[in-house]
Amino acid sequence: MRATVMYQAGDVRIENVPDAALVDPTDAIVRVTRACICGSDLWPYKLMQPGGNGQRMGHEAIGVVEAVGAEVRTLKRGDVVVMPFAYSDGTCAFCHEELQTACIHGGFFGTGEVAGAQAEAVRVPLADGTLFALSLGEDDTLMPSLLTLSDVMGTGHHAAVVARVGRGRKAAVIGDGAVGLCGVIAAKRLGAEQIILLGRHPDRIALARQFGATDVVSERGEEAIERVHELTGGFGVHSVLECVGTDQAMLTAIGIARAGGAVGRVGVPHYEATPASQPAFYHNISVGGGPAPVRAYIEQLLPDVMEGRIDPGRVFDRVIGIEEVPDGYRAMNEREAIKVMVKP
Amino acid sequence: MRATVMYQAGDVRIENVPDAALVDPTDAIVRVTRACICGSDLWPYKLMQPGGNGQRMGHEAIGVVEAVGAEVRTLKRGDVVVMPFAYSDGTCAFCHEELQTACIHGGFFGTGEVAGAQAEAVRVPLADGTLFALSLGEDDTLMPSLLTLSDVMGTGHHAAVVARVGRGRKAAVIGDGAVGLCGVIAAKRLGAEQIILLGRHPDRIALARQFGATDVVSERGEEAIERVHELTGGFGVHSVLECVGTDQAMLTAIGIARAGGAVGRVGVPHYEATPASQPAFYHNISVGGGPAPVRAYIEQLLPDVMEGRIDPGRVFDRVIGIEEVPDGYRAMNEREAIKVMVKP
Repeated sequence: MRATVMYQAGDVRIENVPDAALVDPTDAIVRVTRACICGSDLWPYKLMQPGGNGQRMGHEAIGVVEAVGAEVRTLKRGDVVVMPFAYSDGTCAFCHEELQTACIHGGFFGTGEVAGAQAEAVRVPLADGTLFALSLGEDDTLMPSLLTLSDVMGTGHHAAVVARVGRGRKAAVIGDGAVGLCGVIAAKRLGAEQIILLGRHPDRIALARQFGATDVVSERGEEAIERVHELTGGFGVHSVLECVGTDQAMLTAIGIARAGGAVGRVGVPHYEATPASQPAFYHNISVGGGPAPVRAYIEQLLPDVMEGRIDPGRVFDRVIGIEEVPDGYRAMNEREAIKVMVKP
Repeated sequence: MRATVMYQAGDVRIENVPDAALVDPTDAIVRVTRACICGSDLWPYKLMQPGGNGQRMGHEAIGVVEAVGAEVRTLKRGDVVVMPFAYSDGTCAFCHEELQTACIHGGFFGTGEVAGAQAEAVRVPLADGTLFALSLGEDDTLMPSLLTLSDVMGTGHHAAVVARVGRGRKAAVIGDGAVGLCGVIAAKRLGAEQIILLGRHPDRIALARQFGATDVVSERGEEAIERVHELTGGFGVHSVLECVGTDQAMLTAIGIARAGGAVGRVGVPHYEATPASQPAFYHNISVGGGPAPVRAYIEQLLPDVMEGRIDPGRVFDRVIGIEEVPDGYRAMNEREAIKVMVKP
């Protein structure tokens, strides 16, 4: 089958690899009908050192179950499923607490251990716990939005939950990538009265406004912090959704949080530490977040997708075939595309 | 009047200073009947550079109102009051949100702006918002416990609240100082089923066990982290109360938190940054806390003190007069005393 392999920064190839096959009796094989390229895939695309054996990329997918192992109980051939970016058994203490990204037996797609989903098919470990079956045909018009439930919509929602967005609260979203845009949707859905997007790209800003952003701040650093304070009566926002993952974004996040506020960070952190003292401590600002338990959030978000109240699939502004994936990486990395969907 | 002035590390003097006097019409003058020395006072006692004009120390007190300004409405001469370590107007947005330590017009005692309470009397700005009047005589036997409501008990409670202690949760308290010991009381009061104290001093450990600690870990660093994991089925604790404020304490806090857990930090941070990536991010651990809004917590904690359900006053193991305050600093700094009460 054809699959995406990254060898080093900027070097993404589509190669023939052995067909995905059952290994454990709890596995399923999913024929990928839609995958996508993630902002987090751009980190290795920028930084991966040469010399490895290549990494099978992709951790977001919707597809059709082609085969199940002997111990799979809840899924059958032909089921249309959402594949969250992490696999999880669904039965451990953390899964019961709906923190499936801490599953004792779980892990992540597109790592050394389990291959990626930017491919014609993918092996899904712990299929009963991992996959979420939909009662829709594989080409339903809702598929783009449903695909975001495998990562970016759930991740934006996680940032909003950790940042304690609620009715009447002021929120800011740092980052105008797909996760940030989904963070805007999530903040609006949870009732924020003011949603400030910190971003610089006109196409993304336009979409953010349609999703519910009430203000846009395109400055950076200290100027951005000042601007957010101006927009919030001098105090900052209750909730900051940090959807970038850089040092600068984190400094800004803490700088724009209101005293007693919360930062939900979901950008994979490419920084070593968060500032401890001023203003985080003296302003009683809490900082939380991490890999989103999107498996849990699918059930919460699905009704709003199904009934058209949210439409996160609009973050996809390009659809490509599997052979075009390398150019998809390039386009996202050059900010030519917000998010690229792959139809293998 | 006599008051405590610190000139540099190790140099604390009792001096004659001008009597505390009304400045603003919202002030009150409080004759201090009980003050104390705080673990946070030990930071300048260790680190203060020479060359300044001296700092008037002390931010915890109970006393009797001696005079009130023309605009003070709720207090009168003779009232016995608790003085929280921060003053606050009681009317701003943050005070209404019960985060009085972020009061727009507020500040802290024992700073350049407002003198300290290790003195015969203290000027209290914004008296209506700041002071909490008790309906007890000034020498009631509950006074030691009531005095802790001015800081350490409220601060330990804040750590527990931010760390999301609740019924059936596992908690760890880092630090066996007075705040840590009050953190144990708070964790038990909020229903923690397991309370692990990380501390090394036998007298403090004994008191912690009486307050409700179920386990004690005296190792440090990686060994402490391993030991807490052993005590918690391998996963760590839901709630960490970080009551020290050093780099090492913070690293330990994040290391012993269970995935999805929370760290409440109340030790004044003497470190620049908290680790951002592993394990804080990947384990979805949130870190919050700061100066405790003890003014709000007095009302919550007072019934338990009045009815004897908690007895935080037991953290005081030495009572001294004002002239002995320099020796009180020495005794606390050398861990000869847990917490020293001052009766000016």
